Amino acid sequence: MVNPIVVGIIGAGRIGRLHADNLRLMPSFKLKSIAEAMVTEDLLAWAESRGLGSIFVDGEELLQDPEINAVFICTPTDSHAYWIERAARAKKHIFCEKPISLSSEQTSQALRVAEEEGVLLQVGFNRRMDPSFRRLKQLVEAGELGSPQVVKITSRDPQPPSEAYVLSSGGMFMDMTIHDFDMARYLMGEEVVEVYTRGANLVDPMFGRCGDVDTAVITLTFESGAICVIDNCRKAVYGYDQRVEVFGSLGSATADNCRATTVEVSTASSVTRDQPLHFFLERYNQAFTDEIAAFARSVSLNEPVICSGHDGQQAERLAEAARQSHLTGLPVKLSNAASGEVAAAQAL
Amino acid sequence: MVNPIVVGIIGAGRIGRLHADNLRLMPSFKLKSIAEAMVTEDLLAWAESRGLGSIFVDGEELLQDPEINAVFICTPTDSHAYWIERAARAKKHIFCEKPISLSSEQTSQALRVAEEEGVLLQVGFNRRMDPSFRRLKQLVEAGELGSPQVVKITSRDPQPPSEAYVLSSGGMFMDMTIHDFDMARYLMGEEVVEVYTRGANLVDPMFGRCGDVDTAVITLTFESGAICVIDNCRKAVYGYDQRVEVFGSLGSATADNCRATTVEVSTASSVTRDQPLHFFLERYNQAFTDEIAAFARSVSLNEPVICSGHDGQQAERLAEAARQSHLTGLPVKLSNAASGEVAAAQAL
Amino acid sequence: MVNPIVVGIIGAGRIGRLHADNLRLMPSFKLKSIAEAMVTEDLLAWAESRGLGSIFVDGEELLQDPEINAVFICTPTDSHAYWIERAARAKKHIFCEKPISLSSEQTSQALRVAEEEGVLLQVGFNRRMDPSFRRLKQLVEAGELGSPQVVKITSRDPQPPSEAYVLSSGGMFMDMTIHDFDMARYLMGEEVVEVYTRGANLVDPMFGRCGDVDTAVITLTFESGAICVIDNCRKAVYGYDQRVEVFGSLGSATADNCRATTVEVSTASSVTRDQPLHFFLERYNQAFTDEIAAFARSVSLNEPVICSGHDGQQAERLAEAARQSHLTGLPVKLSNAASGEVAAAQAL
Amino acid sequence: MVNPIVVGIIGAGRIGRLHADNLRLMPSFKLKSIAEAMVTEDLLAWAESRGLGSIFVDGEELLQDPEINAVFICTPTDSHAYWIERAARAKKHIFCEKPISLSSEQTSQALRVAEEEGVLLQVGFNRRMDPSFRRLKQLVEAGELGSPQVVKITSRDPQPPSEAYVLSSGGMFMDMTIHDFDMARYLMGEEVVEVYTRGANLVDPMFGRCGDVDTAVITLTFESGAICVIDNCRKAVYGYDQRVEVFGSLGSATADNCRATTVEVSTASSVTRDQPLHFFLERYNQAFTDEIAAFARSVSLNEPVICSGHDGQQAERLAEAARQSHLTGLPVKLSNAASGEVAAAQAL
Repeated sequence: MVNPIVVGIIGAGRIGRLHADNLRLMPSFKLKSIAEAMVTEDLLAWAESRGLGSIFVDGEELLQDPEINAVFICTPTDSHAYWIERAARAKKHIFCEKPISLSSEQTSQALRVAEEEGVLLQVGFNRRMDPSFRRLKQLVEAGELGSPQVVKITSRDPQPPSEAYVLSSGGMFMDMTIHDFDMARYLMGEEVVEVYTRGANLVDPMFGRCGDVDTAVITLTFESGAICVIDNCRKAVYGYDQRVEVFGSLGSATADNCRATTVEVSTASSVTRDQPLHFFLERYNQAFTDEIAAFARSVSLNEPVICSGHDGQQAERLAEAARQSHLTGLPVKLSNAASGEVAAAQAL
Repeated sequence: MVNPIVVGIIGAGRIGRLHADNLRLMPSFKLKSIAEAMVTEDLLAWAESRGLGSIFVDGEELLQDPEINAVFICTPTDSHAYWIERAARAKKHIFCEKPISLSSEQTSQALRVAEEEGVLLQVGFNRRMDPSFRRLKQLVEAGELGSPQVVKITSRDPQPPSEAYVLSSGGMFMDMTIHDFDMARYLMGEEVVEVYTRGANLVDPMFGRCGDVDTAVITLTFESGAICVIDNCRKAVYGYDQRVEVFGSLGSATADNCRATTVEVSTASSVTRDQPLHFFLERYNQAFTDEIAAFARSVSLNEPVICSGHDGQQAERLAEAARQSHLTGLPVKLSNAASGEVAAAQAL
Repeated sequence: MVNPIVVGIIGAGRIGRLHADNLRLMPSFKLKSIAEAMVTEDLLAWAESRGLGSIFVDGEELLQDPEINAVFICTPTDSHAYWIERAARAKKHIFCEKPISLSSEQTSQALRVAEEEGVLLQVGFNRRMDPSFRRLKQLVEAGELGSPQVVKITSRDPQPPSEAYVLSSGGMFMDMTIHDFDMARYLMGEEVVEVYTRGANLVDPMFGRCGDVDTAVITLTFESGAICVIDNCRKAVYGYDQRVEVFGSLGSATADNCRATTVEVSTASSVTRDQPLHFFLERYNQAFTDEIAAFARSVSLNEPVICSGHDGQQAERLAEAARQSHLTGLPVKLSNAASGEVAAAQAL
Repeated sequence: MVNPIVVGIIGAGRIGRLHADNLRLMPSFKLKSIAEAMVTEDLLAWAESRGLGSIFVDGEELLQDPEINAVFICTPTDSHAYWIERAARAKKHIFCEKPISLSSEQTSQALRVAEEEGVLLQVGFNRRMDPSFRRLKQLVEAGELGSPQVVKITSRDPQPPSEAYVLSSGGMFMDMTIHDFDMARYLMGEEVVEVYTRGANLVDPMFGRCGDVDTAVITLTFESGAICVIDNCRKAVYGYDQRVEVFGSLGSATADNCRATTVEVSTASSVTRDQPLHFFLERYNQAFTDEIAAFARSVSLNEPVICSGHDGQQAERLAEAARQSHLTGLPVKLSNAASGEVAAAQAL
């Protein structure tokens, strides 16, 4: 049996604790330490119930532990890039939540350091590991759908976030659509050359006051001419709506919502079945486990991660382009996808 | 029992004969005459088997029959507007296949004459009468979905048309998407203010040679800010894909494809069910009957038709705007929906 | 074009009129006359709207018309056998509603006469022509499911019949389950050797007062050892529940209920879709047309009918055996299916 | 936080190890010891990877550990009753796999001892905790389906067991259908008064040589007159088929199979979706966890278990009655359900 990967987690909020619990269940990992600047009673009780010993207040201390092989960065977004650099310098492999940063320069800098230090960096686009979406990817790769022509992604949240969250989120495109941008690139296996956004403020005027949208349809054009259309909304009263369709020259495949049971009830007034699973913790429960299992394999075998820093950066570029398109009302060309330049489309 | 509406059909190709057979089954109609410039043996045999007497070569003769109350115009598109005028002048109520014309001026002129003469004019957007789409409309009108926010329409043909057809079709937007433009307006009950088209040539280079596209995603913005996205393709190998979704503030409703049976077969290798019904004759079989039943009601009760000349014209305007957007790569504003002016969007 | 089959209908109640309307739509038939002992104003209005001329009060007059090739027998059950004999003697081909009679002797006698006179006799087990059930039959015949091992048939009515109907119906097994007995034989292509019934009175005590059941589970054992289980109920509040499953050594196939639309509505409180189509007129609409189209083919080509007098008789025997099993609480062996003897099982 | 329940497992075969892994994940349990008579290298490796210390060869040693509160009995069926007695005498709460024994006397004796000693005894009918079946139970209990009238249970295995397994299994009714007998009682909340079995040998002659069946339809009549029909087969080529339907006076509810993904693939040749989850480990994965969580609650709060020794015994009685019915070809009355007498039906 190989030695488990010794892990430290920086940031013990909701997502940090989720990863902690998943890490504890997997024999390929040994969760050793947690670092969290805000030590609350709740955190201490949680750590004790998991048998975790001391908690560092400063992530630097955690990084100095030579036994730790890998670090999970689960802090607020604005310090992701900083901790990537620090962890890379300490020669730790890195699993970082998305996005890497809200700034193209910071992201580039973080990626550069990780590359220099030769550590693995996986970005937490967990949906790549959802069993249904992974099946879509396999169908595309196996050529069973022929050349992909149209990809359709629906992503709607069950309830809108708070105003405070909206203000610090980087906007809907960077916070929410970014998952769909990654899904589009993942399924297509090629780069986007143009983005057109049609955003709206239909759910709550609060989003407008924050300079954000709550509803949007985003059209992506790929190098091959294939087209992806994403529709987002911050509020779907019936629950978390997560569907993907890939239409290709040899066929089409759809991934529908997941539901808690298969029960259908027929009465004198209606025929009903379950609503979609509530939110991302329930719907992507399996994906959260599988993404860190994939990380374990990559670290153990020194293989490429399933979602790289470059993937994270490309999704951020698309989010930024979508925002520009929304602001200008015009399609935005990604003139040189490799260099990451974003240019407003020239009128003909 | 009321007297049946006496009908003449001008144009006895596939769609003319379809309407003839449906008219014969309905007690509210009496099909009296057919006019068709191209009299073939096949046509004569068909007419005989239906017990139809003489066939006029010139529609004018049919229009001179004072017993005829209503005329179905089923000629090629380029003479629709002409026959609308002629029939209106002869004081016949009119059912005309879509589109009215490929020219905004011609359509306006035809509508003006019909209005002057006070005859009813129904345009053949049959999908409004599809039981599933009609249910969506009822849900919207009853407010069960709240304010509509996003409408999604998928329309893919099972096989591409011939080059000859493509060249005379007016292009995919005018020939195929026009149904979806009408569906979008029908479901939303309001007008479009902006159109953005992302077209592609992915099915067959023939479309490109004809100056047309075979694949497209079209985004419509409505007055209220609601967004509609249409995805079209001239070829779906698995059959005629016709789905609609309306997402609103209080819920969402989807209309799925129709299949010939409900059978599901599970074997050692797969779990399969039927493909969608082959093409529009099968899928919209009920709608073709129901649209003329609705026309009968409108004529009998002198009530508004379910799809007016104005509706036909608005769909044509959207098709033209979609074509312009495709050509320029820019969103196109419908600056004054009522007057029908189409203006290219100004860059900010 | 072949000459149409000239038809007379004896019995112009609900089912007679249904067949009349379907016959009128089909070029292979010419409906000439109707005979109905009870001439009401409603009947006269109906006949006039269909352009039917004189109505005979006595079926004998109709049978004397030499132009008539075929007769549809749609009278109450107790005169079916009589009219089969009369029509056969008049050398008319016969389409007869089910059951042929409530008496084994009468049925045998009617079949004997039809055979002597060499006329075709089709029994109206319309469900054989339902598109989904026909698909099941094709799958079985093509061997795609291997050897059938278990057949499951669910048949529940949306609402119970009146007491008057129950008293004259011959009981649930003869009136309702008889369709399922025929379906079981049709799908299996072999004969039943034993019947066990578990009946109950759970819907309305009226059924019990009439000496009938309203709920039952019936187990049929076939010659091959394969088993069929039928579950019936006179009242399903959610509508007409008609499902069939064939499970075989190489796979399983299910036919689900039919619904008016494909619409699914998701709201904050539920996810709903349509209830099953209301009752047999809606659900078996297509089957009613297709069974007479099949009859037309059989008459025109002088080929075996899709559901013979023998098939009708076998279903009646199963109904009688099911009733005996219910009365005795014991399985009933059909000791010699060919001779139609029914014997109570001997205790071991 | 309450102290965890300290657990020992007697029997470390497949099901014992499954429970072990689930126990380790749950904070309410502390798995301390394993007893297994057959200590293999494979077992030692498994135990080491789970950090389990010494393994007892004799369960008695495990029972002498005063720290242990509860014992999981996962040995072969023929020693279940023995270990229940031993564990009860040692004042341990007991979770025992089904069936308790193949002998009515042994089961009664085991239950008596558990009752005398005042320990909790839960029988491992895990399907009660399946999320979909539990939903059915909730619907029944909440009265949303009215009075249950017909329950239908389909249970088919993906592949037949070995001859050795069949010979020691107690027969299909005791080994496989027993789960469905428990499900029927669980959903109905009342007792069965009559059992009729129609068994067959259609999958493999081996079953017949072993004196067993491989296919069966079993009809249960409940005290209220409601009817349950179970259909079983030892081999379904398309996978593990586990469906339940409850039909009542106010509605019907169905629980369908579970599948690994929601993906549907449409190509030129077919429309396919996933087969059912492979077998019980996958399908009832959640139920295996939830049943021991329920056991933890019962032990902690000293509340009734979700599936008692009495429930286990009643299912065994039904299995025995089903076997007698199969052997005699006659329905078997459970003349006094409370006393467990089984009597052959008297011919009328």
